[in-house]
Amino acid sequence: MIVRPKQHWLRLIFVWHGSVLVKTFSRLLLNFVFSIAVIVMLPWYTMLGIKFSLAPFSILGVAIAIFLGFRNNACYARYVEARQLWGQLTITSRSLLREVKTVLPEEQRTGQFIRLQIAFAHCLRMTLRRQPQPEMLAQYLNERDLQRVFASNSPANHILLLMGEWLATRRREGQLSDILFHSLNNRLNDISTVLGGCERIANTPVPFAYTLILHRTVYLFCILLPFGLVVDLHYMTPFISVLISYTFISLDSLAEELEDPFGMENNDLPLDAICNTIEIDLLQMNDESNIPPKRMPDKHYLLS
Amino acid sequence: MIVRPKQHWLRLIFVWHGSVLVKTFSRLLLNFVFSIAVIVMLPWYTMLGIKFSLAPFSILGVAIAIFLGFRNNACYARYVEARQLWGQLTITSRSLLREVKTVLPEEQRTGQFIRLQIAFAHCLRMTLRRQPQPEMLAQYLNERDLQRVFASNSPANHILLLMGEWLATRRREGQLSDILFHSLNNRLNDISTVLGGCERIANTPVPFAYTLILHRTVYLFCILLPFGLVVDLHYMTPFISVLISYTFISLDSLAEELEDPFGMENNDLPLDAICNTIEIDLLQMNDESNIPPKRMPDKHYLLS
Amino acid sequence: MIVRPKQHWLRLIFVWHGSVLVKTFSRLLLNFVFSIAVIVMLPWYTMLGIKFSLAPFSILGVAIAIFLGFRNNACYARYVEARQLWGQLTITSRSLLREVKTVLPEEQRTGQFIRLQIAFAHCLRMTLRRQPQPEMLAQYLNERDLQRVFASNSPANHILLLMGEWLATRRREGQLSDILFHSLNNRLNDISTVLGGCERIANTPVPFAYTLILHRTVYLFCILLPFGLVVDLHYMTPFISVLISYTFISLDSLAEELEDPFGMENNDLPLDAICNTIEIDLLQMNDESNIPPKRMPDKHYLLS
Amino acid sequence: MIVRPKQHWLRLIFVWHGSVLVKTFSRLLLNFVFSIAVIVMLPWYTMLGIKFSLAPFSILGVAIAIFLGFRNNACYARYVEARQLWGQLTITSRSLLREVKTVLPEEQRTGQFIRLQIAFAHCLRMTLRRQPQPEMLAQYLNERDLQRVFASNSPANHILLLMGEWLATRRREGQLSDILFHSLNNRLNDISTVLGGCERIANTPVPFAYTLILHRTVYLFCILLPFGLVVDLHYMTPFISVLISYTFISLDSLAEELEDPFGMENNDLPLDAICNTIEIDLLQMNDESNIPPKRMPDKHYLLS
Amino acid sequence: MIVRPKQHWLRLIFVWHGSVLVKTFSRLLLNFVFSIAVIVMLPWYTMLGIKFSLAPFSILGVAIAIFLGFRNNACYARYVEARQLWGQLTITSRSLLREVKTVLPEEQRTGQFIRLQIAFAHCLRMTLRRQPQPEMLAQYLNERDLQRVFASNSPANHILLLMGEWLATRRREGQLSDILFHSLNNRLNDISTVLGGCERIANTPVPFAYTLILHRTVYLFCILLPFGLVVDLHYMTPFISVLISYTFISLDSLAEELEDPFGMENNDLPLDAICNTIEIDLLQMNDESNIPPKRMPDKHYLLS
Repeated sequence: MIVRPKQHWLRLIFVWHGSVLVKTFSRLLLNFVFSIAVIVMLPWYTMLGIKFSLAPFSILGVAIAIFLGFRNNACYARYVEARQLWGQLTITSRSLLREVKTVLPEEQRTGQFIRLQIAFAHCLRMTLRRQPQPEMLAQYLNERDLQRVFASNSPANHILLLMGEWLATRRREGQLSDILFHSLNNRLNDISTVLGGCERIANTPVPFAYTLILHRTVYLFCILLPFGLVVDLHYMTPFISVLISYTFISLDSLAEELEDPFGMENNDLPLDAICNTIEIDLLQMNDESNIPPKRMPDKHYLLS
Repeated sequence: MIVRPKQHWLRLIFVWHGSVLVKTFSRLLLNFVFSIAVIVMLPWYTMLGIKFSLAPFSILGVAIAIFLGFRNNACYARYVEARQLWGQLTITSRSLLREVKTVLPEEQRTGQFIRLQIAFAHCLRMTLRRQPQPEMLAQYLNERDLQRVFASNSPANHILLLMGEWLATRRREGQLSDILFHSLNNRLNDISTVLGGCERIANTPVPFAYTLILHRTVYLFCILLPFGLVVDLHYMTPFISVLISYTFISLDSLAEELEDPFGMENNDLPLDAICNTIEIDLLQMNDESNIPPKRMPDKHYLLS
Repeated sequence: MIVRPKQHWLRLIFVWHGSVLVKTFSRLLLNFVFSIAVIVMLPWYTMLGIKFSLAPFSILGVAIAIFLGFRNNACYARYVEARQLWGQLTITSRSLLREVKTVLPEEQRTGQFIRLQIAFAHCLRMTLRRQPQPEMLAQYLNERDLQRVFASNSPANHILLLMGEWLATRRREGQLSDILFHSLNNRLNDISTVLGGCERIANTPVPFAYTLILHRTVYLFCILLPFGLVVDLHYMTPFISVLISYTFISLDSLAEELEDPFGMENNDLPLDAICNTIEIDLLQMNDESNIPPKRMPDKHYLLS
Repeated sequence: MIVRPKQHWLRLIFVWHGSVLVKTFSRLLLNFVFSIAVIVMLPWYTMLGIKFSLAPFSILGVAIAIFLGFRNNACYARYVEARQLWGQLTITSRSLLREVKTVLPEEQRTGQFIRLQIAFAHCLRMTLRRQPQPEMLAQYLNERDLQRVFASNSPANHILLLMGEWLATRRREGQLSDILFHSLNNRLNDISTVLGGCERIANTPVPFAYTLILHRTVYLFCILLPFGLVVDLHYMTPFISVLISYTFISLDSLAEELEDPFGMENNDLPLDAICNTIEIDLLQMNDESNIPPKRMPDKHYLLS
Repeated sequence: MIVRPKQHWLRLIFVWHGSVLVKTFSRLLLNFVFSIAVIVMLPWYTMLGIKFSLAPFSILGVAIAIFLGFRNNACYARYVEARQLWGQLTITSRSLLREVKTVLPEEQRTGQFIRLQIAFAHCLRMTLRRQPQPEMLAQYLNERDLQRVFASNSPANHILLLMGEWLATRRREGQLSDILFHSLNNRLNDISTVLGGCERIANTPVPFAYTLILHRTVYLFCILLPFGLVVDLHYMTPFISVLISYTFISLDSLAEELEDPFGMENNDLPLDAICNTIEIDLLQMNDESNIPPKRMPDKHYLLS
């Protein structure tokens, strides 16, 4: 994710890093070259009785813009929901710890529970990005739990079960009444909702046919566009063609990037930074001394 | 559903499987042939004083694009809601089992409850797809329950009643206080919400007249389009006509596919895989040994 | 509501029943006749120096399409919400009965409570459709309650009060602890939410001026359209004019139908069928023997 | 608000009351007169080398239609939310009273609590419409409470505090267990949510710049439109110009009306009628005899 | 934020303060000057064989309008959500205090709790606007708490922990049963949700590439527009070009302003005024005497 301070509107036009321009550059270049080819071929194919006009492209362009707008909506909604779920995890982690700390008699073992909470966040991040890092989780979990967690189909769900067992032990020891256990258990259910929501987004893409239909029509539209433009614009065709193509292709590309918000691309969610925030917040709430440093954006304003 | 790994944009243009192209091919071919016929007929009908221009098609095309965008929104919203409901079932199934395991004293009978939970998921899937498979449910339910379930108007609702009775027995035996019973019962209510939501989507289509009006206008528009295009494009008419028709017809077709997200078509929800996930997760949470294998997409990346 | 099995796209074009075509036919015929009149008058009014072009209609057409899309969204949202509220009633009715059955000691009087639940559903349906049927409710309520219910400003709300009193009696008899009463009472609150939501939809239309502005502009646009089309299309004017008018007028009509989803028109909600489902489900959950038959769509696939 | 029975589509075109036409009439007349002026000036300004075409207005018209659609969405969403909040107040008022009546031992003082509930609804209405009517509230509150209520920054919030104190007194007297108090208190929190939501809508308009940008562009567009139309339409310019202007200006005006849904304009919410409904429902639930008459729409179908 | 009384539509056209015109003036002036340059250059570049037409700008203009509409939606949704979160804070603050006051035995120390609540609101405001004002918080917090709050990564979260500890002390002293503590703790969780939601909006911008793509296409479109317009409009080019540019650039600018609703720009949220309302409401509910004055809009109707 890019967290860029406000900049002058003129400078924004020349930004390279973090735009999808890097990924679409080759396609736009192709479009430019092809437009020149069309100008060159124009006298030849006109001679063959082949003619074009811009009007059909107008109908097609508007239709594609409307459908592209729809797909952007759908993909952006996934991005927003993913961000809300991780926001919910931050919120619930703090609420759960606050409740545990205020309700249980003071004791050293709260630290144990906090480690389970932190392990959950990191484990969820790893699962969503398909990057298991057992050595990292080993900081927070004992050997036996770690093995069971990684043997599970849904590792994060197993950590949640460990949290439930920790609370159940407190209840069996008489430190938690049924009502307070019920209240804390509701927080675990909230975390379970976050987990299930993230898994849903990661495993269910936008229906593949949407991606396909729009990719196809956008590319065919951009390829054929110079034929329509050349009649009206002649030498100016490559410039206007690239400008129109840029609008359509870059929005198509961005939608694709946002469709999987847990990825590692420029515009994806900064899961590392969110996990880092959760870890710092929980450790500070327990007045612990050994707190990791806060992650900051790099020089391109990127936060992973 | 299709879970396709990211591919180069150029390859996507030639994908056949999983696109709605398979279903719309005959209509596009018809459109192509008809366009040629229009080119041939052009001198003849012009002679009769019949003339067309593209401008009226422009008004119509934009209006249809806007209304088609609306219908796509409505159908996609049903798809997303259906997926969320099944995601909710996964979440609640895990939360319910975690709560049962941490709250009840250890005993062998949790396995019985898990079987009811798994039976519910499979039974809901069967109901929504209208494929009753009593032999499959017989794995999880005893003979008497199975009969009552299949005699019911809403079989899944009857399994929910069995789950409620199982919990009520534990309460009557004194293993569950009223508060904990109330908490577990709320999970059953969540499952009831999933059940009712799925039944609603399956039984209430998008108002039929929307489907009808858009089908009609899309097809009439695509059939008449060559008359409008031929004046400007002549020989190029069939190509541009098929491209524009593809955009409209394929989105119309896809909306129809998504309208019933519980179907068995390419872009429908992978209910088999979700039931399989629920089954694996619940059995692993109870440390059972006999766990079914995880379902994977087939060679066309399809997951049913 | 129309529950039509999937049909070949070609057949759909000729469907009459359940489309709004029945209602808009006279207006489209008028449009056809008027288009012919415009062709005939063309030489005469051109002579007077009156001329038209299609371009202004293009601006107007797109603007109306966008605003019509907005109104369709608003009306469809009412339809979906109404359906969700009735879905919620189904869900809560089942959950409430399951909770009552599992929590209360076995006794004959659950049947009494079920009758109140069924009476509520029927009473709500009658209120929303403004068809009071006291003789039907007399099946489920005793004489005295029936009189008080029909004397009330909101009859369904009075039945809810009776349900609350039934539960309160159980609590006073010591069969329900405060927690379980609180839990059951929350279900009554859910039903109260359904009731209030349905009353809101039934009593608050989409702001009247939206309906008015769009009716007016749609009809004026369709009446003036032939003047714009005739320059480009001449003899073809009536056909294209009717096609464009069909798109606009039918969507305007459908939006009006969906605006009041509790009505008795083709595309309205099947409240009879939903009440029937609730009745069957509740009676089956209580293992009663005298269960009414399930309502099925008629030969035109209509379900009321 | 206007609650109009269904009417023939033809009659709707001539409706005056309740449309925003009353408010926009002068602007449309101005537009008509100006269009005629443009026709007269046409030869003169053409001579000066000033020329126009409709194409730029097409771009501008579509852009404005899209943005106006967006603003209509935003304003309508406020209207719908405001209506839902008042619907929620009706629902919660009934639920709260039902709970109070079924839970508390029978006593005369429930009437006192009902008066507080009714006072809350009226007080909220007065606050939102900025019409304090102390003499009306004096019917329901005693002298001392009335003074404290009107001294408060948020009078309705003070009535809520009185309701909380009434319930707290019952708890202190031992008539309410902690669980039932907690349940009733949650209803008060629901009412607090309604109050806060209404205050938010009343105090936070749609960002002023949206209103401004759209007002400006709509009016400039409508003023310049005749210059673009006159080339194509000549004598017909005033008619088409007024029709297009009507579409844009009336939707702009309606959005403005809906932006503040608590106002007293034609399309605003009928708060008087809703308060009246709440009052009747609560008094009937308590079997009181002195019930005010139901408010009905006036002869123009208006309900305030 | 601007809270402007209703004004005549004609006066609105000349408003300067609070519109984004102040910020976009230089860009519009540039556009005007450049348009004149294009008129001057027209004969020269036409001679070179360079020609333009308006049709490609029509395709581009509609596409940009649709995508700009999408971005406006996304940014406005952030603004609305931010406002709702602060509305929720107002609601929950009042509900929490009402519950504390009605549940706890009368004592002086409620004032202490109110100070924590007020400190939370101010602290959240400071964090979101990145303006720490320790001297202001010192009014409400003691020295030791103040230091711990400012040492924390999330100061507002630490104040929430202090509120939890205050309640926990009351529970340990026997003044709160577990149920009432659970109820009050749920209100703290609601506040935690507000906190997390605000942090999410403040830290996660709309994906940067959206801003970038739209900035670029809007500015390139506006710069190239005069070339397209000059053919049809000649001397009128600067006026129409500026009008179209105004529509696009001002909406782009406003979206940027709303993207960060916690900023200090004209159309941002009045956090000072909301904190002021919370403070007054809470102090009045506790019948305190030393109540700060209500903040009013300044002479430009601005409320910060």
